[in-house]
Order: sequence, then C-alpha cells, then structure tokens
Amino acid sequence: MSGMIKNYKIIISYDGSRYDGWQKQANTENTIQGKLEALLSRMAGSAILVHGSGRTDAGVHALGQTANFRMDTTCSEAELQAAINGYLPEDIAVVHLKTASERFHSRLSAVGKIYRYRLYVGNGKPVFDRKYVWQPDGELNMDKMREAASFLVGQHDFRGFCGNRHMKKSTVRKITRIDIEKTAGGTEIDLTFEGNGFLQNMVRIMTGTLVECGQGFRRPEEMPEILETGERQMAGKMAPAKGLTLMEVKY
Amino acid sequence: MSGMIKNYKIIISYDGSRYDGWQKQANTENTIQGKLEALLSRMAGSAILVHGSGRTDAGVHALGQTANFRMDTTCSEAELQAAINGYLPEDIAVVHLKTASERFHSRLSAVGKIYRYRLYVGNGKPVFDRKYVWQPDGELNMDKMREAASFLVGQHDFRGFCGNRHMKKSTVRKITRIDIEKTAGGTEIDLTFEGNGFLQNMVRIMTGTLVECGQGFRRPEEMPEILETGERQMAGKMAPAKGLTLMEVKY
Repeated sequence: MSGMIKNYKIIISYDGSRYDGWQKQANTENTIQGKLEALLSRMAGSAILVHGSGRTDAGVHALGQTANFRMDTTCSEAELQAAINGYLPEDIAVVHLKTASERFHSRLSAVGKIYRYRLYVGNGKPVFDRKYVWQPDGELNMDKMREAASFLVGQHDFRGFCGNRHMKKSTVRKITRIDIEKTAGGTEIDLTFEGNGFLQNMVRIMTGTLVECGQGFRRPEEMPEILETGERQMAGKMAPAKGLTLMEVKY
Repeated sequence: MSGMIKNYKIIISYDGSRYDGWQKQANTENTIQGKLEALLSRMAGSAILVHGSGRTDAGVHALGQTANFRMDTTCSEAELQAAINGYLPEDIAVVHLKTASERFHSRLSAVGKIYRYRLYVGNGKPVFDRKYVWQPDGELNMDKMREAASFLVGQHDFRGFCGNRHMKKSTVRKITRIDIEKTAGGTEIDLTFEGNGFLQNMVRIMTGTLVECGQGFRRPEEMPEILETGERQMAGKMAPAKGLTLMEVKY
C-alpha cells in the first residue's frame, strides 16, 4: 500500500539541554534534526531529509522550530504526528503537522523569526528554571539596555554580532523589534527579538552586549560603532545558550 | 571568634529529580538533608543536624520545605544564607533563613502543609515541564474527581491511603481542602492538598485514586469505604513522584 509523496510542515518544541544543536553533523548523532531524520527514515523504510528553518546552537531551546520533509505514507496527519511523538524522546515534541504546498520550504519560505532570551534577576537561585535562564552578575539597568537595543532595531549589517568569522553571504538583516520586559513577578528580564533572520550566535552576542550595557560596563552609544565597523571583538561576550529559545518562525 | 548557638529556620526549594528524597539514609549520600548536613558541618567544623518538617519521597520536589538547625556562627543571616547557596548545587536553594526561637522545631511546630500535584492533560507532550508533571491516560472528568475528593476532606483515618504497612503511630489526619483546578491555559489539572499532616505516600495515593475516578475506572462513592476499611489495596495506584511538589509548611 502506497500513498503519494506529500510535503509535510512540522513545528517542533525541544529542550536543547541534552543536544548538540538542531543541525545534523558528521561527528555526532545527538542533534534534533538527526533524531528526526533517523526516526522518519526508519518509519518510511528509506532516507527522509528534514529541512529546518535554520540552526539552533547546542543547548538552545525551541518552542516553535519549523521544518518540512517529503514522505510517501497512507497515514493521516494525526496518525503520523502521533507516531512520530511516540518514538521521539520526551524532550522533543512535534506540536503541529500538516501537509503543505509542494513549494513550501521551511528555510526559504520563512519571512521572520522570534527569539526570546530569559535573564534571571531574582535574589535567589532559579531552581526549576535553571536550564532555561541565565543569571548575569550585578544589577541591570533596563533603561540602558533598551537604549542600546534601539540602535540595533532596523536594517543593518550585523557582521559585528556574528559568531562566524568566515561568513561569505550577506550579513545584512532587519530587526523589527527588541522588547525588554520584566516578567515572572519581577524575577526575570526577558528579551524578545523579532527580525527577518539572524546570523550565527547573533541573538546571544546581542544579548551579552545588551547585558553589559545594563551592568554599566559599556555605553549604549557604542552600538552604532559596532555596527559600522563590523568588528566582532568590539561587541560583548556571547550569552550562554541555555537562556535562549526560538519561539516562532513566521511564513 | 565565636558567636552564640542560634536556632535557624530555613525554607528550601529543590528539584527532586536527581535525589533519593529528603531524608538522609545509610545507603546513599544523595539526599537533600544529607547534602545540607554535609555542607553545614563542613562550614561549622563540627556535626550539624538538620531537622526537616517531614520527608519527601525520592523524585518529589519542594518550593517550601522547611527545616531548622543549630549553629554557632558570627555570620549574619544574609551572609550565612549566601554562603550556603554558594555551596549547594543549582537544583537546591535556601530561599529564606532567619533565626528562630529556641523552641522552634520544623516538624513538631508545623500546623499544616500544602502539596500540589500537577497533571498534564494537553494534547501534546510537556517538553519543558516533563519532570514536574504526570500525564495520565485518557480524559479526566473533573466533576467526578471533585466529588471523590469531597469524601476525603475532613478528619479521617487515612490508613487506606498510606504506603507504610507497618505504621505504628496514629494514621488519623485532617485534610482541610483539596482544590482541583484547570491551569496553564487548560493543559494542566492541578490538585492542591492542604492538611495538618500527611502519611507516607498519602498525597500520591490519593492523587492516583482521584485520577482513576476521573478516568471512570472507579466511582467517587468508593472513597468512604476505603477510609472505613483502611485497606491499602482498595485504593488506587500511587501516582508518580515527579508530579508532586511540597508547596508550603505552615506554623
């Protein structure tokens, strides 16, 4: 019994703590894409390629990573989703699965992404959220962070905030908003970044730099200079992976 | 330099996932009480005993476990709390530390406890809360669960809901409320138990029994019979440890 080859769009949530990131790699089988491809290929009896909207670094989480794959199956969408979730480990879930148009491609069709970085700023220790937040030293001045962030919003060459020194393609991206809000009863500051795309490590480097502005170690006015010179060493330290979550990919 | 011996009251939060429960045991060093005593004894240079308000099972969490210990130190309360938290692993935190009266005893002075059991009832998988919720099979009828719970509220002999078959002391306890509420946007049902004390495994056995009522596998009207006969095998299966959190100890 054979169906017909369909192009499936899936949305995936994962706790990245245990994984070497989204993208399959030659030297590790421990990636989200690798787990999904191995599982779908076993189900299909032939190699299935899973195309993600983009990479997430080792240790970064996702609420709404998006991917697509082509498969020949007689299963209904609900059956296929349930079967995949049944085989996936408990820290990865397919939260949406629908047939998409033949032309849909999770990376090429994407028009925007939303990331959230969670900073723990309470007095204690984030016992239950410790794998999902970063606790930077000292007090954070949110006004300074917002002022610095305002320089980053817009279309810029973000080479200075890119972790890949050998980036050959364009490093121009457009950030439409960076919201910086107190949440969780005042014990967290969450940074929400929305843009048409993000370079490697870009959200983590921007977060590290904004935190240094909040700590008073650098001035918001330095942001335009980092953008203009494009020099990575002028920007701040990269924030740890565990505080970052890919919230949504927009199409 | 020596201060004077003070009786300290502490409130502790912990993620119980990695631990063999609260209570120190001869065959494992991996308990919360054991970690605290080892740390305080090292700091004090002599053996310090930590008295908890009661045990929590292996894998059970706490937001507000309470304990007391006597220590001779010149540290301020804030210094002592910061020092303890600095040495504790990231899944255990002292969230409160104050000098208490000489007569204060965390177990004997306690007048009540609040536990919460979190059930995940969404369609998906609780990727980020997987260590803090239990996902029972099937649909749960909350009216049936509440009806069953109403029989348990009040002062009763809870021997039938006790995991210790050789309990010599009184098994009479008073439950003042069992609230059963949808939370987390409808993806969770949380059971909140408040009472003057709980027997070994009692909250987990009550939860397992209430879930079976919600699933339709047993009738709420069976509750009085379980209480009257006091036979453990008449009650339901014990719910998994990971869904349970000790929220607060009242004094």
